Amino acid sequence: MSSNPAAFRRRNPLTGEWVLVSPHRNNRPWSGATEESSTTALPAYESNCPLCPGNARANDTVNPNYDGTFVFKNDFAALTSHEIEPVEASPLFQEQAAVGEARVICFSPEHNKTLPQLPVSQLLAVVETWKREYLELAKQYNCVQIFENKGEIMGCSQPHPHGQIWAHQHLATEVEKEELSQKAYFEEHNTSLLADYAAAESKDPSRVVCENDSWLAVVPFWAKWPFETLLLSKDGVADFTELNDTQSLDLATIIKELTTRYDNVFNTSFPYSMGWHNAPSNLEDKSHWVLHAHFYPPLLRSATIKKHMVGYEMLGESQRDLTPELAAKILREVSSTHYLESK
Amino acid sequence: MSSNPAAFRRRNPLTGEWVLVSPHRNNRPWSGATEESSTTALPAYESNCPLCPGNARANDTVNPNYDGTFVFKNDFAALTSHEIEPVEASPLFQEQAAVGEARVICFSPEHNKTLPQLPVSQLLAVVETWKREYLELAKQYNCVQIFENKGEIMGCSQPHPHGQIWAHQHLATEVEKEELSQKAYFEEHNTSLLADYAAAESKDPSRVVCENDSWLAVVPFWAKWPFETLLLSKDGVADFTELNDTQSLDLATIIKELTTRYDNVFNTSFPYSMGWHNAPSNLEDKSHWVLHAHFYPPLLRSATIKKHMVGYEMLGESQRDLTPELAAKILREVSSTHYLESK
Ligand SMILES: O=P(O)(O)O[C@H]1O[C@H](CO)[C@@H](O)[C@H](O)[C@H]1O
Ligand SMILES: O=P(O)(O)O[C@H]1O[C@H](CO)[C@@H](O)[C@H](O)[C@H]1O
Repeated sequence: MSSNPAAFRRRNPLTGEWVLVSPHRNNRPWSGATEESSTTALPAYESNCPLCPGNARANDTVNPNYDGTFVFKNDFAALTSHEIEPVEASPLFQEQAAVGEARVICFSPEHNKTLPQLPVSQLLAVVETWKREYLELAKQYNCVQIFENKGEIMGCSQPHPHGQIWAHQHLATEVEKEELSQKAYFEEHNTSLLADYAAAESKDPSRVVCENDSWLAVVPFWAKWPFETLLLSKDGVADFTELNDTQSLDLATIIKELTTRYDNVFNTSFPYSMGWHNAPSNLEDKSHWVLHAHFYPPLLRSATIKKHMVGYEMLGESQRDLTPELAAKILREVSSTHYLESK
Repeated sequence: MSSNPAAFRRRNPLTGEWVLVSPHRNNRPWSGATEESSTTALPAYESNCPLCPGNARANDTVNPNYDGTFVFKNDFAALTSHEIEPVEASPLFQEQAAVGEARVICFSPEHNKTLPQLPVSQLLAVVETWKREYLELAKQYNCVQIFENKGEIMGCSQPHPHGQIWAHQHLATEVEKEELSQKAYFEEHNTSLLADYAAAESKDPSRVVCENDSWLAVVPFWAKWPFETLLLSKDGVADFTELNDTQSLDLATIIKELTTRYDNVFNTSFPYSMGWHNAPSNLEDKSHWVLHAHFYPPLLRSATIKKHMVGYEMLGESQRDLTPELAAKILREVSSTHYLESK
């Protein structure tokens, strides 16, 4: 179907939203904005960086001389611990409290490293940090959002390798959509949506990027970003608390491979937002939920030409030119050794 | 409520999605990406521009020497007129045809003009063009999406003032959400959602930007972009075919005022994506629908600092710092004379 030059739509079963695919449009010329590609080599330590070991942050707290990962409370958290006064109910003016907290996770003390440049042992430390933080925060909050914005283009204000956690009582809109869809699917089929999806994709190599015993990385059938991927637990694990040592190590390994493949597509540090969707922590029965990460990278045709999700996409629905199958092929065919290492 | 320093959430009744508001976070420092602000004056005619009168486009068609608006078939349309072969139904792999067409509307022959710089008479010509195109395309397609991407930051590849129309059989995801919400509201209340909303906002000045007899521009209660606005028909008009001459002229007038106010916030040509939501054209009864435009401008704190809808927003839900009430106040307090005219 991907060789068919007609436009078509595909449905994301997790959100119920559609994406418009226009494969014939791949070769349209581009004379719009291009992004800067930062090629300047960064130092391993930067005295002005608020995330480097031993440096002071905005509120004058001094970072410890950490040498693995380092987690601290976000100095500019979007969530607060106190509640607003409730607003009288009206279908048009609905406002509710958003109680929660936000943390920052430094992935490495080295200012100039990115995930694919870390050895698997250090990536395992990142995975273990995610698990530990999740375990602690999930006791208190129903929705623990662990994510990474990578690259200036993704609004990342600090090049130092780091991710974030925003944890709160309420289910975020996207998590709620996925909860409803997975629940409805389970009720109808008595199997979980993402387990069935992983099984179907494992059998057909066309959208698979890489996999190991515990994890599968695919460009989903309904991908909206050009090189979007979905990283799925193959064992039907529902959240980080259930990950055993093998699954954690396999996760570190596949993150290294997937992010290396990204960087190798355009020989650049590939920007993205990625994040985890764990089962809501207050669910009694999590059988319908499969732990997964979404990678949403904006680049389209080079290190400097990104896909703009603008007018039509904001008002209508997401649109893509490159088919998911072609994106998967490109990611599969690049080397799994990082371009900077193989130099 | 906007003076309350706690984070809170608000619900968009058109889509059912929530936005996280963090007013206490307004003053966080920014050391991330800034956008280029183009201050170079453009010529009124540019020989390389595919939209200027008399110039050749990609496919060697030559533009007429138009002197009002000019509409042509998009040379790189995302929609095609032929259908894909249907894919066997499966809840996880749903694919469908997307039959339609796309057009480009040049707003003015002058390469260096933007909407707020056009006199009302020329803006009326733009409105009349939208109406004419809508009328023609709505006979053939259920969903006619009329929009404008303005500025490089919004993926606009040509500075020449222009908008687009993507028209197709199926309802786009966002339109379908709004159709379902407006329909459900009407069934419950026997009044239309947006008519009730417009009436409530008209009474309370806190989110109103400007209004005239036929139109109301507000920063909606649930706005996700910092300076997002919703432009609403006050007469409950459902689509462009119903607009009378007064309503058309009033629309030209309010577009001039609203876009002028945008430019005056940062004394820059304010980028945005804007677009119209007409009632689906195949609806027999349109009583629940009110014609409206959404303006989604990305700027946050200056001509070069934009809001990044990234990690948390992509995986959780939209987040804003500035309250809608403060954004409305800023838009209301700037001059309604364009900063370039008043120099
Ligand atoms: O059609 P244009 O202006 O070349 O392209 C622009 O608008 C389209 C519709 O919003 C988007 O799909 C593209 O990503 C954007 O670059
Ligand atoms: O928290 P940061 O890195 O300063 O900010 C970045 O990530 C946040 C969470 O995705 C976004 O809300 C901001 O718009 C973005 O600039």
